[in-house]
Amino acid sequence: MHIQDLTFARRFDGISGSAIREIFKMIAKPGMISFAGGNPSPAALPNDELAPIARSVLENDGKRILQYGATEGYPPFLESLRAYIQSSLGVSPEAILPVTGSTQAMDLLCKALIDPGDTILVEDPSFLGNLQCMRLYQANLVPVKSDAQGLDLEDLEEKMKRFHPKMLYVIPTFQNPTGKTLPLERRKPIAELAEKYGVVVAEDDPYRDLRYDGTALPTIQSMDTSGFVVYLGSFSKVISPGMRVGYIAGNSGIIRKCTLGKQSSDLHTANLTQAIVDAYLRNDQLIPHIRTICLGYAEQMHAMLDDLRSFPEGTRFTVPEGGLFIWVELPEGIDTKPLLEKAVERHVAYVPGTHFYALGGHENTLRLNFSNASIPQIHEGMDVLRSLFQETLAL
Amino acid sequence: MHIQDLTFARRFDGISGSAIREIFKMIAKPGMISFAGGNPSPAALPNDELAPIARSVLENDGKRILQYGATEGYPPFLESLRAYIQSSLGVSPEAILPVTGSTQAMDLLCKALIDPGDTILVEDPSFLGNLQCMRLYQANLVPVKSDAQGLDLEDLEEKMKRFHPKMLYVIPTFQNPTGKTLPLERRKPIAELAEKYGVVVAEDDPYRDLRYDGTALPTIQSMDTSGFVVYLGSFSKVISPGMRVGYIAGNSGIIRKCTLGKQSSDLHTANLTQAIVDAYLRNDQLIPHIRTICLGYAEQMHAMLDDLRSFPEGTRFTVPEGGLFIWVELPEGIDTKPLLEKAVERHVAYVPGTHFYALGGHENTLRLNFSNASIPQIHEGMDVLRSLFQETLAL
Repeated sequence: MHIQDLTFARRFDGISGSAIREIFKMIAKPGMISFAGGNPSPAALPNDELAPIARSVLENDGKRILQYGATEGYPPFLESLRAYIQSSLGVSPEAILPVTGSTQAMDLLCKALIDPGDTILVEDPSFLGNLQCMRLYQANLVPVKSDAQGLDLEDLEEKMKRFHPKMLYVIPTFQNPTGKTLPLERRKPIAELAEKYGVVVAEDDPYRDLRYDGTALPTIQSMDTSGFVVYLGSFSKVISPGMRVGYIAGNSGIIRKCTLGKQSSDLHTANLTQAIVDAYLRNDQLIPHIRTICLGYAEQMHAMLDDLRSFPEGTRFTVPEGGLFIWVELPEGIDTKPLLEKAVERHVAYVPGTHFYALGGHENTLRLNFSNASIPQIHEGMDVLRSLFQETLAL
Repeated sequence: MHIQDLTFARRFDGISGSAIREIFKMIAKPGMISFAGGNPSPAALPNDELAPIARSVLENDGKRILQYGATEGYPPFLESLRAYIQSSLGVSPEAILPVTGSTQAMDLLCKALIDPGDTILVEDPSFLGNLQCMRLYQANLVPVKSDAQGLDLEDLEEKMKRFHPKMLYVIPTFQNPTGKTLPLERRKPIAELAEKYGVVVAEDDPYRDLRYDGTALPTIQSMDTSGFVVYLGSFSKVISPGMRVGYIAGNSGIIRKCTLGKQSSDLHTANLTQAIVDAYLRNDQLIPHIRTICLGYAEQMHAMLDDLRSFPEGTRFTVPEGGLFIWVELPEGIDTKPLLEKAVERHVAYVPGTHFYALGGHENTLRLNFSNASIPQIHEGMDVLRSLFQETLAL
């Protein structure tokens, strides 16, 4: 047989790769102003602090760090992580599993729960990386209506009744891609609906600590008494995405299945990266670091919001209180997907909004990231986009 | 609904967790002599060398290491890894993907290739961790007969014809659990059968560099001209398992699907651990390190083999040329599974052989690891086992 006749598993039918990562290759040329991706600012990456930590954890506990570890996690990190969750979220979850970022958390939850054809309810739009993960488990993705504040509870209950979903995937705080935050009064009802209909809620909350305006809200999980709400946390946005450290926290039965799945997925998260985050937490370096990076991010966000106010008439955009993204809806008729190529020619990149919709459409939308460009770059890049969209509308 | 009524995905039916990892919890008490597991010797873990490296890679390339990386790997590591593979295996594979150990390599290959019900041919016995991984993909595991040298080629072809398998999983060098090495004359025919029947061969080769006697053999992949043989490499046994760095190398179409799968599994392997292995390779530290650790492992293996020669009459065992394991077959009628509890009471642990057989049975076998105990501990532990088995046979 010829290797080109090899057939792959059916889960890959129709899967071509994350649009963001393909866009990233396209824009990996010097001089590009990127509003695509969700990269932290280079200034926000604490390499000066982590370099000596990396050395000292290996000096102090090297034999244990370099040996096989438990799937359940590096013991000192489990301790500091539990304390961090308790103080940051005000809850003490039944079980916690360190993972290699919330991408793996999603993969393990799907592995634990999803048979081909099972329904997962998703926000509309939602994070495209995790939509792809769900598609690889051959899930049936059903979008739930959103309004200006996020998930529409009536439509959510209606779809829980109608589709008997296995899971609801929600990013309640500074959502990716919209930047919206689900208000307090919608949080508890989601936990209640989860219990009523037996639906696991995957509460993906990587942006929570990046708040620039307003006040923090309790997590959906903190209002859950049933065990159906699972919390996905990540240190990617507040320490380093390249370290790949995050966690799942929640009901011990669900975490146990995720642990079994992880045993066969990668055995355990690297002890070294767990030990580094552990030391960063124990040294009380995280909170001051977050405070510092939020100052910069707030300026970047407000600069981009200011620029958006002079975009072509009919342009609508979200005004987030934190996170990394602003969502833009251009006047009808404009299609941001073919326009991306022209933007890239002018050295500016964004992600066309259609990629974030489980069922496509919404061609006049785009996602803008403000964390990975300086203020002058933001102004320069936004000028380019404003002109490009104006020209296109004038055609 | 009550959380206890939550049903998990069907892939978990009958999956209870790896026997080795459960045994590990049982034996995690001080004073235990462990012949279970496949842990490198603590002395073989280069913490003194890696501590300054961890610091210096973050000092030299910290902003890139802490940022999101490409699923395809950390660019400097891709370079040094390709050079290492070329010099160590004498081949230059079409494509290479860094992964978090060969456990993830297996997971990604299954994700790429296996639909529920697809057949995977496995050695009998084989590595139980990866058998569990395949079961989670709901594969139909069909064991192929082995003789004293490894896979029986006649039975292999017979089963390729009969079961139309998607994959053959083979550990050709110092096999886990038997320590056997597949002779040269059986390697090329496996590559030829793979092409003839269109079966992907997963050649899992983590022990290759741990050779104490005899001479190195070419890999199956080096004799493959079709692209059907995929090579799984790992730095777990020669640098550190806790770092979680390995790779898959082979046909670019297969690696491309694994890369897509990895994108949704964990986005990318931690840049820091890739950068550390990269520096270790570039500093030419790996080859002298392997030479040193092989000296110690050779002594440990020969000490254990010597002790086995005075085991009860009728005991058979393999005499490996390298690796970490010796396989023992006790006289018929003895069952090593219930005996493990008694051994642990006497502070000695091993893995009952039955766990390594896809279809169970073979209750009179066990796997012994010699790398994680000192020479005096080996003699002490083997004395305990000898007495225990003698007593049991005398009953």
